[in-house]
Amino acid sequence: MDTVSNKKKLHVIKIGGNVIDNSENLYHFLKDFTALQGYKVLVHGGGKVATQMAEQLGIESKMIDGRRITDIETLRVVTMVYGGLINKNIVAQLQRFGTNAIGLTGADGNFIKAVKRPVKTIDYGFVGDLNDDSVDASAISRLLAAGFTPVFSALTHDGDGQLLNTNADTIASALAVALADIYETTLIYCFEKKGVLQDINDDESLIRDINPKRYEELKKQQIIHSGMLPKLDNAFKAISCGVKAVVIGKSDELGSLQQGQPFGTTLSN
Amino acid sequence: MDTVSNKKKLHVIKIGGNVIDNSENLYHFLKDFTALQGYKVLVHGGGKVATQMAEQLGIESKMIDGRRITDIETLRVVTMVYGGLINKNIVAQLQRFGTNAIGLTGADGNFIKAVKRPVKTIDYGFVGDLNDDSVDASAISRLLAAGFTPVFSALTHDGDGQLLNTNADTIASALAVALADIYETTLIYCFEKKGVLQDINDDESLIRDINPKRYEELKKQQIIHSGMLPKLDNAFKAISCGVKAVVIGKSDELGSLQQGQPFGTTLSN
Repeated sequence: MDTVSNKKKLHVIKIGGNVIDNSENLYHFLKDFTALQGYKVLVHGGGKVATQMAEQLGIESKMIDGRRITDIETLRVVTMVYGGLINKNIVAQLQRFGTNAIGLTGADGNFIKAVKRPVKTIDYGFVGDLNDDSVDASAISRLLAAGFTPVFSALTHDGDGQLLNTNADTIASALAVALADIYETTLIYCFEKKGVLQDINDDESLIRDINPKRYEELKKQQIIHSGMLPKLDNAFKAISCGVKAVVIGKSDELGSLQQGQPFGTTLSN
Repeated sequence: MDTVSNKKKLHVIKIGGNVIDNSENLYHFLKDFTALQGYKVLVHGGGKVATQMAEQLGIESKMIDGRRITDIETLRVVTMVYGGLINKNIVAQLQRFGTNAIGLTGADGNFIKAVKRPVKTIDYGFVGDLNDDSVDASAISRLLAAGFTPVFSALTHDGDGQLLNTNADTIASALAVALADIYETTLIYCFEKKGVLQDINDDESLIRDINPKRYEELKKQQIIHSGMLPKLDNAFKAISCGVKAVVIGKSDELGSLQQGQPFGTTLSN
């Protein structure tokens, strides 16, 4: 028998470049986001603007073993672009639609405290990693209770005055896990595909639901594309930590969720 | 007999370039700001960084009749620099000192709604003017009551998705006037001088207190420097609208306020 939760519903929704970089996609997404009932938290990544801005300012992208290094100049750019330009424009647009948004980094309200990634073989620079105590769920719930909708950019801080660049997927997952103690939390990753596909080239081959057992089968059958594996592993990890479901879907179909229609691929126990 | 106010005390403090552009000044100011008891709101202007950033990006500063025009490119720069770089670094530093700061523009929480300046002879571009209904004092007080200290950058919005550049002095004054309904509000302008001086070249000639009568006398005697007149006129306007006092002083002496020592020039009724 299912236990009925007395917790209020919360959606944590993450958008990336495919929404942010396209003003029409962003417009429709923010409209659908506003229509979604209940408590909401939005997390956004960077998109192309930060790369373009760094180029315009003559800041070289430093990559080691295919991974980007956040030196102090790059941190300045992402603080301007993620924390300022993208975040505040999203907030202004959400206000237009009637969502009482507040744009944040993890430094604001001390909501997300990270640890600067230790230097082992590679110095990633000003990159913050999260741990189990990173998110102050109780402080975020005070903001939600006061009627505001938090909009997080992909920035955190170390609590000692230093801002840090932190992956937006990781922030969304950490927020969902921490807030699951207080709310019945669904984590939604907006994505360029309709969800998890049986055949990556066929949008109609969407798999609607995956539970841990089916996930093991799909992995054995090598149906899940290797690029999706870390995303899905992290999703099931979030679910094992109390998140009710993780949904992976296309941003322009978010509206279906509000209309009670199926949306993307739902991962749950 | 003085009436005793049951209102809680609030300080609205504005800092400009002379604090923001000097990391040592900023460090000491934020430490003193943290030590100040009671509710607090910080407002910051832009400083030199926005001008430097615009130059680096090859954006020409457009001036008409000596006044800066905020075209769409300039708005992007100030959104990045004021709303992102400066604001979020101030927040991260305040967190380090123990102030639970949240960095904001007027779009966040719909706290400050402005009207794009109408085009008469000059098109100032994306500049927002404030009116009596601009500030949502009740929403800001919800944030204060939830334990957060708002840090406003010099940006507002029109409620229709458009961010606007708005003078930080004007924002500080509008916030103080609106919040005076709820709190016993003191407005502090941090300034490059010790306060209002009898002799502009002599820092020791500080005038400690000015009431409206004394202000008229000082004006008649032409003691007040012409550049100070609009600042003081606006200060007395804020006082006539319910602000308890306006203090003009040097940022590095803010600490004296907490120690019960005199600080700068106090304007009051």
